[in-house]
Amino acid sequence: MHQPYGMRIVGISAYAPPTIVTNDEIARRLHAERDKVERHRQAIGAPAMTDDEQAAFDTNDRWIRRYIGFSERRFSGPNEGSIDLALRASQRLLTGLHRSPRDIDGIVFASVTPSFRHSPPDAALLQEALGIPTWVDGRPREILGLDVALACCSWMAGLQTAYRHLADAERILLIGADRMSATINWRDRSFACVLGDAGTATLCERVDPADDWFGDNRFFGWIDGSKAMVIHTPVGGSRRPDLAPSDMESYRHCLTMDGRQVREDMVPFVSGPAMDAMLAKAGLALDQLDLQVWHEANLVMNREVERRLRERGFRGTTLDAGGRFGNTTSASIPLALALNGVELKPGRTVALVGYGGGYSYRSAIATIRHPISTFVDM
Amino acid sequence: MHQPYGMRIVGISAYAPPTIVTNDEIARRLHAERDKVERHRQAIGAPAMTDDEQAAFDTNDRWIRRYIGFSERRFSGPNEGSIDLALRASQRLLTGLHRSPRDIDGIVFASVTPSFRHSPPDAALLQEALGIPTWVDGRPREILGLDVALACCSWMAGLQTAYRHLADAERILLIGADRMSATINWRDRSFACVLGDAGTATLCERVDPADDWFGDNRFFGWIDGSKAMVIHTPVGGSRRPDLAPSDMESYRHCLTMDGRQVREDMVPFVSGPAMDAMLAKAGLALDQLDLQVWHEANLVMNREVERRLRERGFRGTTLDAGGRFGNTTSASIPLALALNGVELKPGRTVALVGYGGGYSYRSAIATIRHPISTFVDM
Repeated sequence: MHQPYGMRIVGISAYAPPTIVTNDEIARRLHAERDKVERHRQAIGAPAMTDDEQAAFDTNDRWIRRYIGFSERRFSGPNEGSIDLALRASQRLLTGLHRSPRDIDGIVFASVTPSFRHSPPDAALLQEALGIPTWVDGRPREILGLDVALACCSWMAGLQTAYRHLADAERILLIGADRMSATINWRDRSFACVLGDAGTATLCERVDPADDWFGDNRFFGWIDGSKAMVIHTPVGGSRRPDLAPSDMESYRHCLTMDGRQVREDMVPFVSGPAMDAMLAKAGLALDQLDLQVWHEANLVMNREVERRLRERGFRGTTLDAGGRFGNTTSASIPLALALNGVELKPGRTVALVGYGGGYSYRSAIATIRHPISTFVDM
Repeated sequence: MHQPYGMRIVGISAYAPPTIVTNDEIARRLHAERDKVERHRQAIGAPAMTDDEQAAFDTNDRWIRRYIGFSERRFSGPNEGSIDLALRASQRLLTGLHRSPRDIDGIVFASVTPSFRHSPPDAALLQEALGIPTWVDGRPREILGLDVALACCSWMAGLQTAYRHLADAERILLIGADRMSATINWRDRSFACVLGDAGTATLCERVDPADDWFGDNRFFGWIDGSKAMVIHTPVGGSRRPDLAPSDMESYRHCLTMDGRQVREDMVPFVSGPAMDAMLAKAGLALDQLDLQVWHEANLVMNREVERRLRERGFRGTTLDAGGRFGNTTSASIPLALALNGVELKPGRTVALVGYGGGYSYRSAIATIRHPISTFVDM
């Protein structure tokens, strides 16, 4: 078992839409929704909300900064879906790298918010939007297109998919893009406080095995559906496809989360046995990691994870987006990488870790072997 | 470039829910919907439908049999989503093969109708439902989970993904499952006549390179987003996330298709340049294919494709589901394989071809090198 080629990351680009939404604005929107519900209850003669019910709408800037670590996030404009976020990031990447669309022969599009339900796939939309040629010398040009999803681990899963598919394509454009603002339940502060929108593009290129940044032993994956409902969207999937107007009004087609449960389950797992398993497979110790990047679900939670890892010997640097973009799901890890390009120096070893809905867990350890270009458009 | 291991398909299982829906029933439901729209128009004083508008609701058994080749299809029961279809197929497969859930260390779940939007992923749900162990000897057990989609090519894309991910997992359960009935626009006969529900499970196992059924040159992929809107779902994705009640009532969250355009574009493409490109890459001629299986979007269209290929030298057998299950999207190819298990004899070479939404095209050529077990539960 040895992969006969390696992968290099040539460049990473991140785009975030211009509309900044502060914590205060999130709090105001939740309160407005609470007032709407109260008015509706009065109108139909229902009892007023209990204190517990009211609490679901209550948050403020201080609370969000203290318990989540986020200061602001970006929201897409109308009709700006994942494909539009991805396109901006991809164009910036190709321009910045002086590469042409014809250099791309694969697209792996990681997202939990596909631009269209069922069809068309985002990979096909991006091929067309970028102008990647589909014919050459009168013959169809082979292009590997694929949309992938694994909740909060979608990008990590896409990274491993790209790595393995370099057997089929020489240069794969790996997308991590999500319009999470479209999934917010405005009657539930748990996700309303955290979600944000961003698109990223990463150019993955086939190299000789000796130049490989990764390796067969550098990826680790885990899924555990026993806690699947801790992060879930109640209606609109094929399990419960019928969206009644009342479902829509109460945002049951949007994400719901038991944040406390996630923290209780995930912090010990990802800083303990999952980290041990990943390192054991790679034959590395914690103090050999120069950099680490975690899916930015909650910066306070990630800092608790980091604290535990430091106690256990981690001496490197943690890269993040600083709480300025919220939880951008499939974009979070490449966004943090693009924002911290100066740290991505050849010779350094970086651990990338996704965790969340499913539960799912995916990690990779890269040893940077070439200069890497990063671009931000925000 | 040479993959250091091969893939064998150990078994394929297909499940279709018990509710059979005939062409007559489809015609009646479309007519009932037409009457509903007419009554609504009368109620609001709108003009009656034109003949053209009426035609969108008009079909009958003879027309469907003649132009699509389908006689019936199956529909899921309430709350029976893709995960439930997949679970039935997976259980039948493992029982039939005398394999245990602990033999599985990877799940690739291909579907355009995920059980839940955003989260949890179907791969995690299936891990839990099957009881695939997540811990061993006090350590997290590595399990590769991934949901993939590429419209009508989702299963073909999943097959290639499984092939490549055998570097990470020894036995991958490849799912193709779709509850397409939940995506039907009952005001548009184009898809209402064709869609059906089914779940399939395929056990993909790592073998020595000499025993490989496939090979680096046995897959071909293509995407072309220039015709993306020929098969699409207007609202509900991140491009247009807001589902107004009027959108729901007019089924704008469901699939729409320009069937004539698909036929005009796809029949010449898949029987001509796409077939040539696939064969050239594999170094094979048409007369070397013993079997072929096409995504069963429309059996009349597939027979036209077959006719053209026979003119060009194809002398093998075409396997299909005989129009008894409709277009089951991610399930169609493995369903046809499971129904025709007797044909899957060692030594035979079989072409598998998906085409459709995106546009997307994916093909693979397998040379069967081991006995294969097939199971049907319907």
